[in-house]
Amino acid sequence: MTEPTATDTKTRAAAAIAECRLIATMSEEAGRTTRRFLTPPVTKVHAHLRARMAALGMSVRVDAVGNLRGLWQPASGTSKRFVLGSHIDTVPDAGAFDGVLGVVLALELVEMARVRSLPLAIEVIAFSEEEGVRFGVPFLGSRAVAGRFDPALLDLRDSAGVSVTESIRNFGLDPGEIDAALLSDAATGFFEIHIEQGPVLEAEGLQLAVVTGIVGQTRCEVCFLGQANHAGTTPMAHRRDALTAAAEWICAVEAAAKEHNSGRDEIIATVGKIVAEPNAGNVIAGSVRVSLDVRSTRDSVREATVARLLDLAAAIAARRGLRCEAKRQMEQPAVPMDEQLTAYLTEALEAADFPVRQMPSGAGHDAMVMATRVPTAMLFLRSPGGISHHPAEAVREEDVETALIVGDVFLRRLATIHTH
Amino acid sequence: MTEPTATDTKTRAAAAIAECRLIATMSEEAGRTTRRFLTPPVTKVHAHLRARMAALGMSVRVDAVGNLRGLWQPASGTSKRFVLGSHIDTVPDAGAFDGVLGVVLALELVEMARVRSLPLAIEVIAFSEEEGVRFGVPFLGSRAVAGRFDPALLDLRDSAGVSVTESIRNFGLDPGEIDAALLSDAATGFFEIHIEQGPVLEAEGLQLAVVTGIVGQTRCEVCFLGQANHAGTTPMAHRRDALTAAAEWICAVEAAAKEHNSGRDEIIATVGKIVAEPNAGNVIAGSVRVSLDVRSTRDSVREATVARLLDLAAAIAARRGLRCEAKRQMEQPAVPMDEQLTAYLTEALEAADFPVRQMPSGAGHDAMVMATRVPTAMLFLRSPGGISHHPAEAVREEDVETALIVGDVFLRRLATIHTH
Repeated sequence: MTEPTATDTKTRAAAAIAECRLIATMSEEAGRTTRRFLTPPVTKVHAHLRARMAALGMSVRVDAVGNLRGLWQPASGTSKRFVLGSHIDTVPDAGAFDGVLGVVLALELVEMARVRSLPLAIEVIAFSEEEGVRFGVPFLGSRAVAGRFDPALLDLRDSAGVSVTESIRNFGLDPGEIDAALLSDAATGFFEIHIEQGPVLEAEGLQLAVVTGIVGQTRCEVCFLGQANHAGTTPMAHRRDALTAAAEWICAVEAAAKEHNSGRDEIIATVGKIVAEPNAGNVIAGSVRVSLDVRSTRDSVREATVARLLDLAAAIAARRGLRCEAKRQMEQPAVPMDEQLTAYLTEALEAADFPVRQMPSGAGHDAMVMATRVPTAMLFLRSPGGISHHPAEAVREEDVETALIVGDVFLRRLATIHTH
Repeated sequence: MTEPTATDTKTRAAAAIAECRLIATMSEEAGRTTRRFLTPPVTKVHAHLRARMAALGMSVRVDAVGNLRGLWQPASGTSKRFVLGSHIDTVPDAGAFDGVLGVVLALELVEMARVRSLPLAIEVIAFSEEEGVRFGVPFLGSRAVAGRFDPALLDLRDSAGVSVTESIRNFGLDPGEIDAALLSDAATGFFEIHIEQGPVLEAEGLQLAVVTGIVGQTRCEVCFLGQANHAGTTPMAHRRDALTAAAEWICAVEAAAKEHNSGRDEIIATVGKIVAEPNAGNVIAGSVRVSLDVRSTRDSVREATVARLLDLAAAIAARRGLRCEAKRQMEQPAVPMDEQLTAYLTEALEAADFPVRQMPSGAGHDAMVMATRVPTAMLFLRSPGGISHHPAEAVREEDVETALIVGDVFLRRLATIHTH
């Protein structure tokens, strides 16, 4: 077994980046990358990845929710297999690396394993859906693989009125076969490589981080209900302005999260969406609906913060003579990564002489869903500028190279376990 | 000449309210009152008012911007005429009284003048457009009458792509004839009765107010430009959140207006419109566009306040690492009402034993445009609940009755001047 040369991993890193950029051109929209669940450009991505997998000697299938799955079997190996992957759908006007990079690097790692004749069977999954853009619910792909696909999801409809069932049929697949997407019992674990999508690694001058877990998340909708009225004829003291109430609360949400942290990022809280009615420059806002997104690795901290912020919204509304209605839309506990696999991954960084940084993931990932089924680990790559979900999303070639080196060490370690 | 009896004005008030509610059913939308410039329901309103005018013995015409104009000539009178009126267009989902009440009461006053054989020629104008809803520019009707209709307005297009020119032609009118809409040189003044559209009279337990002038107004658009990013992966300290910046500024706008007033309503400031991008619950807002509407009877106070608020927006943006862009969209100086006519109107209230309350109008009105052409006065009626631009908009019958009594005294006073 020969060590990969520096040239080898550097070349692979450059090729992986080019491949991500190529896949980014397979889009629903000219000039922008938008690729929702089972839309026409997914066919192109499948054709491309299928050819790559076939060239690596992998057996390939597409399961009933559109996950493209390739299995590499070494000449000598056990019946066990390890699973790599990430997703190939995107947000609207996306970058080239969110999700796709993890799939492309999985195939590079298979190729490196093949070169080494590593005695480890590897299944690579290109998950069809993670972002939740088309049907408003994320993880359609990994839910099916993890055995957590609620059949009620099949009735969801996209903005054009097409159901999940119809989208699956239109793609030439059989929605009756979703159970067959379930992960094989031979699978011993799952590993996902993903861009950080945040600024932390860059700020600290680091390339990679071992993910300790996925933060828990609460999403709410808060509605401030005042009285729409004429902006010219209603004196300041007579107003029940829903927008000034919402603005006061948005400031308070930011202040609460900043204050809580004092150095550590235990809590992040975001109001990203705001809809005012009637939303006219010369009319005092009668109602304002805002989103609240609170995340933490510690469920108790998250729950206490949400409760405090919703109380505050009610208090601001009451003081201003408004009503306030809050709906909890999502409560998702934090999901820790597997301790043993995470320890192996940490050791792989140490073995390759890279500094070890552990951090939680502030975003949901397929790894979060897969962790409910098999031991799961996750590796983050630095995101230049902290930018993601944006065409400016990027990766550095040296970081991709380091990820390949660490991934290779990690898989070699797993191979020794599988064969013992 | 006989005094109108109490029964007479009470009956007229009830009839006027019923007539406004009838006209409110003439709408572009079933179940809601929406009647934009020269849309099909305007034909129904014209037919209704034309019949009313004809029954009063008025000569009727529709000018080239769709103002319905009726002229009542007494048997004995001068060549001079006095003008009454208000508008018949509405905002979307409007109430029944904004504008229309002034037209209906003008016709009641003509009828009262006819009963008295008042030697005063009266022209009643039902202005076709005041709200600015269809083409984004208000006062299309009164601009033409006041000789301030810029021909460039003809090229404005509505949301369906129809131009002002086309809308006039489609209504069976000739856009080449707009000059002929100009107010006759025989007109000696203009008087508009309108609902207050605010809560001041109700709060003070008063029925009517003499309008001293129309506030000046500045409208701006302020854009906060930050960085859209993932709400889960961007720590609080790394954010350039356009929505928290906008929220901080919205709070500051409110505080500045409240603080300046300290008892007097010299300044009102409103942010009524907000548009965030990408406006998703799990994405930090990259840009937020908000409106600013500042009004005051004192132009210098308004200008200083706007300058201070725009400086503040820039400072908030700079402190948060954002950019800020501000566009001034409208600068309109305050327009005082005519001193002499306003004195006559005040005397009419005194003569009829009603308390005199003078107040500025926080909203623009046709009276503001007409004041550029002829001496103009304006009377406000109490708005129950301060509500306007809303289906709950209302008037009290006793207030309508009082307005008729005061208007009648006012016109009788003018008649003595016209004939001397």
